[in-house]
Amino acid sequence: MNHAGGESLTMSNARTIDLNGDVGEGFGPYAIGRDRELIPLLSSANIACGFHAGDPRTMRETVERCIEAGVAVGAHPGLPDRAGFGRRALALTAQEAADDLLYQLGALDAFVRAAGGRIRHVKLHGALYHMADRSEALAEAVAQAVRRFDPAIGLFVPPDGLLERAARAAGLKTAAEAFADRRYGADGRLLPRGSAGAVLERPEEAAAQALDIASRGVVRTADGGTAEVRAGTLCIHGDSPGAPEIAAAVRRALEREGWRIASPFAP
Amino acid sequence: MNHAGGESLTMSNARTIDLNGDVGEGFGPYAIGRDRELIPLLSSANIACGFHAGDPRTMRETVERCIEAGVAVGAHPGLPDRAGFGRRALALTAQEAADDLLYQLGALDAFVRAAGGRIRHVKLHGALYHMADRSEALAEAVAQAVRRFDPAIGLFVPPDGLLERAARAAGLKTAAEAFADRRYGADGRLLPRGSAGAVLERPEEAAAQALDIASRGVVRTADGGTAEVRAGTLCIHGDSPGAPEIAAAVRRALEREGWRIASPFAP
Amino acid sequence: MNHAGGESLTMSNARTIDLNGDVGEGFGPYAIGRDRELIPLLSSANIACGFHAGDPRTMRETVERCIEAGVAVGAHPGLPDRAGFGRRALALTAQEAADDLLYQLGALDAFVRAAGGRIRHVKLHGALYHMADRSEALAEAVAQAVRRFDPAIGLFVPPDGLLERAARAAGLKTAAEAFADRRYGADGRLLPRGSAGAVLERPEEAAAQALDIASRGVVRTADGGTAEVRAGTLCIHGDSPGAPEIAAAVRRALEREGWRIASPFAP
Amino acid sequence: MNHAGGESLTMSNARTIDLNGDVGEGFGPYAIGRDRELIPLLSSANIACGFHAGDPRTMRETVERCIEAGVAVGAHPGLPDRAGFGRRALALTAQEAADDLLYQLGALDAFVRAAGGRIRHVKLHGALYHMADRSEALAEAVAQAVRRFDPAIGLFVPPDGLLERAARAAGLKTAAEAFADRRYGADGRLLPRGSAGAVLERPEEAAAQALDIASRGVVRTADGGTAEVRAGTLCIHGDSPGAPEIAAAVRRALEREGWRIASPFAP
Repeated sequence: MNHAGGESLTMSNARTIDLNGDVGEGFGPYAIGRDRELIPLLSSANIACGFHAGDPRTMRETVERCIEAGVAVGAHPGLPDRAGFGRRALALTAQEAADDLLYQLGALDAFVRAAGGRIRHVKLHGALYHMADRSEALAEAVAQAVRRFDPAIGLFVPPDGLLERAARAAGLKTAAEAFADRRYGADGRLLPRGSAGAVLERPEEAAAQALDIASRGVVRTADGGTAEVRAGTLCIHGDSPGAPEIAAAVRRALEREGWRIASPFAP
Repeated sequence: MNHAGGESLTMSNARTIDLNGDVGEGFGPYAIGRDRELIPLLSSANIACGFHAGDPRTMRETVERCIEAGVAVGAHPGLPDRAGFGRRALALTAQEAADDLLYQLGALDAFVRAAGGRIRHVKLHGALYHMADRSEALAEAVAQAVRRFDPAIGLFVPPDGLLERAARAAGLKTAAEAFADRRYGADGRLLPRGSAGAVLERPEEAAAQALDIASRGVVRTADGGTAEVRAGTLCIHGDSPGAPEIAAAVRRALEREGWRIASPFAP
Repeated sequence: MNHAGGESLTMSNARTIDLNGDVGEGFGPYAIGRDRELIPLLSSANIACGFHAGDPRTMRETVERCIEAGVAVGAHPGLPDRAGFGRRALALTAQEAADDLLYQLGALDAFVRAAGGRIRHVKLHGALYHMADRSEALAEAVAQAVRRFDPAIGLFVPPDGLLERAARAAGLKTAAEAFADRRYGADGRLLPRGSAGAVLERPEEAAAQALDIASRGVVRTADGGTAEVRAGTLCIHGDSPGAPEIAAAVRRALEREGWRIASPFAP
Repeated sequence: MNHAGGESLTMSNARTIDLNGDVGEGFGPYAIGRDRELIPLLSSANIACGFHAGDPRTMRETVERCIEAGVAVGAHPGLPDRAGFGRRALALTAQEAADDLLYQLGALDAFVRAAGGRIRHVKLHGALYHMADRSEALAEAVAQAVRRFDPAIGLFVPPDGLLERAARAAGLKTAAEAFADRRYGADGRLLPRGSAGAVLERPEEAAAQALDIASRGVVRTADGGTAEVRAGTLCIHGDSPGAPEIAAAVRRALEREGWRIASPFAP
């Protein structure tokens, strides 16, 4: 099996972990994030596909930048809600989700193939990521759409949720995702975005949390306790102002402890 | 060489001609055209890709319908102007045109591959079709984008224009396009859409014109004369209310005279 | 007070009822509904404002058509989801709903004022109509936005819900809405759109139901019983293929029984 | 007459000039410009209306910010091309331009009225500004649409062009616009955006040019000569990174020489 963040992986790929970040989230005249600095620090880049963010030019430039930097290219498909940046839940059907997903995968793939690369992974964006982990029908539709598009593509998933289960049932490779720069609650879930202390802004804090997750599978929680967190890939939020500094600190801390930073799905 | 509508083709593929139509131009709750009836009468279907018209669901359904009917699937990319249905010229750069084109090709391709098919041709839509035939930079950008995406894809082009030249220079197969259901002027060009008599609404008229073009490479013009028109593919406008009746009459007339109706690019 | 469908109205305006319909729901090259035939049969027209449907040209033409026909002009604002026709719930905040509403009201108002008219009512569209009736925060945001825009505008509301309550609290006039062409269940609520028998397609059925509601405040329900339904305005769905026939039958039946068909909010 | 930048104005309003800037050009998660710092330095703010840029939330916040700062609120309508930021010419008809304009005016007006203000002026954005100055039909359509919306609104126009003429013929007030932060060529026209030296980035340069235009109606041109430039309003480009510094320098220089900075159309 090839499920990053699971036991088999711990044995075969010991001391390897992935750093992923959302990039290519600009649109037309607008930019978000410091992609040029962030991309070379990642091992996996999640590229917006033109629904919640991104556009053809941004996609092409971002794909080229990733390939040049040797970073694994992934699709970051979202809901068709640019004004809400894909963060507002939308009551679409499983069929609509699958259709929207295929459309976005294909669109990104055109740029990836033109640049001589391959899509290695898919990470759903924003509300879609959460919706698909809470609905069996959505989770299955997503997994089947990815499989039909290319069964060699891996899926980044919340650990132990419906999406991971559906992906495995579809025969897809998965990597459980944890967050280096977000605070977890006592229940092992992220604090809501708006709440106090939800975001770890100091690079050292994020680095320490990344190391805790990678080495011991735990995080310190908001209430001072600890929670178990399994991860094959660690996310750095590309739209944080300090994303490159956080990524650099996380990378440094992991490498100092002997971790190799690499995509779980790229050869 | 493999340029439909050229001399070599007249010899090697004698008595074969293509019937193409624009389909999949609905959007969300909206429908245009009578695709179910039209598609089985075509040999090549040009499917809208979500910019000037079309959306993921419509694309999936249309692709499946074409493949089931044995009709060659083509991309019908347009300008990013849904409100204007891609019919209003937009001053985009050659690079923007290439990026928009790759995006649309990839998006359609995802549905085509998922349905077990392949994109056989590209026909630009509306203002983009005309713009690319009048600008060397645009023509070249389009040809290169198609070639980079898949050099086996053929391009439908206005005969003897910049687009045909750029496509051949890029090593792409081409098919010169003529129109069964539109009136030509004395200069061998189509009468403008709005002008009186610009559209041939009676199926027999369109059938007679199709036969004239296929058999003798001429049309009767608005002023009663004739003009030379070279064609490897004949277009039926899918958004005419009587499109299926026109396509049926054209098909019947051609087949009665021994013509085989087939895509120039499908095996 | 001026709340159509309430007791005070029964006394002061006895034998007057409103017929409303959704119109102007085309977009760019696309048309929905038979507006030309339907509009003259209504007393209140709900005009799409460019978010879920409609565009500037369609809005201008529809406004002019309504004013010419002497039909009260209303705004029909929806969610920013054209692909889903505003029928998919979207998790927007109350502030976002208020902002989107003001934008749409203003946009429509420009055409109404240019044509010498005034907006008389607002009817929320699709998912927004239902969402605002189930969330106090949304209901209040909607009511306050309408009031701030023009306190003389009336609101069409589901009877006895949060939206009606919020509108009254904001000092807005309201008209309770019932549906002539949709089947009610035993609980006094509409059968879901997809379910069997949910739509009354025969004009006589709709006419009988309209008369039952207007005269006695009851409907026959799907299970053969009756339910109470209070209404100051009766809706005809503009996107039903037979909408004009249904509207004509409803109008004829009501007028035959002595009802005057008129907007509750126009002078 | 009330045409800023003309002779009558020179006499009646001597020593008054307007400083305008484009603001509210963000969208969804995206920001452009340093509106908070720039707005208080302007006398007239041109607010994007949701077509080329802007959205309901941004419009509301920007309107409130302008009114609080005592800055005259204007509409900055553009082409329906968000991806191209309204800078790519689009071949729309005069009727389409008028419809799109009314829609945007109304949408902005809703926020302005809700905040207790009034729209004082209109300045077309980007490609639309230039297109309307080169086509009599477009210029007339724009002028008539503004007049029908509110004849008290003034129009910012390129001096001596078709738009100024059409606006005056329609009875609208106008203000000729010049640019403080852009270099002029020997022909009295702006150097194209992309060309070397087209943008004056140093605040002192812009201040000197503003003073030259205001006091003597001339600019130093790219070739070292001078050209006549008539202006009732001076534009500061809001999307320049140093826009607030430029505006501050321009304002200081003008006030030091005794100029009063004020909208030509606000009371």
